[in-house]
Amino acid sequence: MFAYERAIRFEDVDAARIVFFPRFFGYCHEAMEALFGGIEGGYVGMINDRHIGLPTVHVSSDFKSPLRYGDVARIEVRVSKIGKSSCRFSYAVYREKDGVLAATVEQTSVLTDLGFENAPKENTIRPIAIPDDIRALLTKHLVV
Amino acid sequence: MFAYERAIRFEDVDAARIVFFPRFFGYCHEAMEALFGGIEGGYVGMINDRHIGLPTVHVSSDFKSPLRYGDVARIEVRVSKIGKSSCRFSYAVYREKDGVLAATVEQTSVLTDLGFENAPKENTIRPIAIPDDIRALLTKHLVV
Amino acid sequence: MFAYERAIRFEDVDAARIVFFPRFFGYCHEAMEALFGGIEGGYVGMINDRHIGLPTVHVSSDFKSPLRYGDVARIEVRVSKIGKSSCRFSYAVYREKDGVLAATVEQTSVLTDLGFENAPKENTIRPIAIPDDIRALLTKHLVV
Amino acid sequence: MFAYERAIRFEDVDAARIVFFPRFFGYCHEAMEALFGGIEGGYVGMINDRHIGLPTVHVSSDFKSPLRYGDVARIEVRVSKIGKSSCRFSYAVYREKDGVLAATVEQTSVLTDLGFENAPKENTIRPIAIPDDIRALLTKHLVV
Repeated sequence: MFAYERAIRFEDVDAARIVFFPRFFGYCHEAMEALFGGIEGGYVGMINDRHIGLPTVHVSSDFKSPLRYGDVARIEVRVSKIGKSSCRFSYAVYREKDGVLAATVEQTSVLTDLGFENAPKENTIRPIAIPDDIRALLTKHLVV
Repeated sequence: MFAYERAIRFEDVDAARIVFFPRFFGYCHEAMEALFGGIEGGYVGMINDRHIGLPTVHVSSDFKSPLRYGDVARIEVRVSKIGKSSCRFSYAVYREKDGVLAATVEQTSVLTDLGFENAPKENTIRPIAIPDDIRALLTKHLVV
Repeated sequence: MFAYERAIRFEDVDAARIVFFPRFFGYCHEAMEALFGGIEGGYVGMINDRHIGLPTVHVSSDFKSPLRYGDVARIEVRVSKIGKSSCRFSYAVYREKDGVLAATVEQTSVLTDLGFENAPKENTIRPIAIPDDIRALLTKHLVV
Repeated sequence: MFAYERAIRFEDVDAARIVFFPRFFGYCHEAMEALFGGIEGGYVGMINDRHIGLPTVHVSSDFKSPLRYGDVARIEVRVSKIGKSSCRFSYAVYREKDGVLAATVEQTSVLTDLGFENAPKENTIRPIAIPDDIRALLTKHLVV
C-alpha cells in the first residue's frame, strides 16, 4: 500500500460546491505517479525518457461522501492485479481529518509504447510487456 | 438519445499527448447539462435557482481509443434507468471524423438537495424524489 | 474584430463561487484558436502539422465584474499589433446577457518553431517570422 | 518573501507540450494560499468561515522560459503594496532544478465580502477594509 495526501484546491469545487467528480481521478493519477517514485526516474522518466505510458482502459468508481474546499484527500493506492502488459490499481480516497471514505476507484491501465512520432495518426495504443523494474515496483504494492 | 459535440481543446491533452482520461467525464457532464436544456431553466436553473443537483455516486468507463488535439468528440447520451431519486446515464463518446468509439461511460447520479447553507458541515448528500419535469425529461431519453 | 461565445461551465467556478480568474485566459485562448479558423487547417493544423505555435510572452488583464455559473461569456478579439515574429491580441470579455464588461486582456504572443523532437531539452522558444497566410489573417483583424 | 514549490503535473501541459500559460496563475494562487497559512484558519478559513475573498482585479505577467512535465516550479511571493482594501502580490516563478526564471506575475487583489447569499445576483464585488490579522500577515511579506 502507498499513501498520498493532497489538499482540495480552491478551483477543484464546482457550482454545487463540492469537488467535481472527475477531479477524483486526477487525484488518483497524482497518487499513482507518486507511487512510481519508487523506480529510477519516476513516472516523468517513463514518459519523457523511456516513452512509455500507462493509459487507462477501464475505470470504475463509487463516490460515497463529497469532498469540499478545505478538506485534504488521503489516497491509498494498492496494486490489485498484474498481467503481462496491464495492471489494476485500487484506490481508496479518504477525507484526512476524520477518515471518512469519500470514494473508491478501480483502474486498469496498460503499459504502452507512446510512439510519439506516429502518435497523431494512430487510433490504438500499443501494449508492451511490463519491464522488470516496473513489475518489481508493482509487485511491491500488490495486495490480493 | 441526445447527441452533443465538442472539440478537444489545446489544454485537454496530457504529457502523453492524448486526452487526459478524467476529462472524458467532463465531456460527458457537458453533454448531460446540454440534455437538461430540455427543462425550463436548464441545468443552471436546477443548480442556481432550485438548489438541486445531481451528484455522481457511481461511474464505470471503458476507454477504447485515444482522442487527441484536433479531434472532435461526439457524445451520445441515453438514460438507461430511472429510479425514485436516482438515474443512470449511458454515454458513448465517438471521434466525430471517422466514428471510432473512444469511450463508453455508465454513470449513476442521485437527485439531491444541495442545501447550500449547511453544505460545508455535512458529510452526506440528501436524495430527493425526482420532480415531475425532470422525470419527464429523463423518460424522453430513456433507452432500455 | 472577431467574436466568440462560450458558456461558463459547471466546473469553471471556484470556492468563492465566481469564475476562477485564470480560466478567463483559457476562454481568450479558445477565442484566439477560433479566430485561426480563418486559415487552412486552423490552429490545430499549425500545431499538429506545421509544428508552429504561438506561446504567450506577456499578458496583462483587468477584471471588472465577476462571471458566474449560468453566464455566457462573449469574447471579442482584436489584433492590436503585428511585428516580424510577434503579435498582440486585445480581448474584451462581456457577459452576454447584459453586455457588462467582465474583463479586458492584452496578450503578446510569439510565433515559434515548436521543435518537438528537441523540446524537452530546451529552455527557450525559437521565434520565426510570421508566415504569409497567418500575417494576412492577423491583418484582417487588425484594429489600431 | 515566501517560497512555495510544486511539480508540473502530467495534465498541466498543452498540445505544444509546455505548461499552458493560464496554469501559471493557478500555481501563483496556490503559493498565495500557502502564504495565508500564516493566519489562523488560513485561506480556507477566510473563504469558508469569514466569507471574505481576495478576487483579482489586475494581473500582469511576463513569460520568460517554458516549463515542461517533469519540472518543478519554485514560486517566490512578495507583497509589493498594501492599500486600504487592496494589495499587490509580486511572484517570480523559477524552474527549481537550475534556477531559470520562467515567469513573473504582478497581481492586484481586493479584499471582498463574498456575500454568498446574494452573490448570484450581483455584478460587482464589495471591497472591505483589510482586517488586522491579514494586514499583519501581508506586512510581514512586504518588500518595497
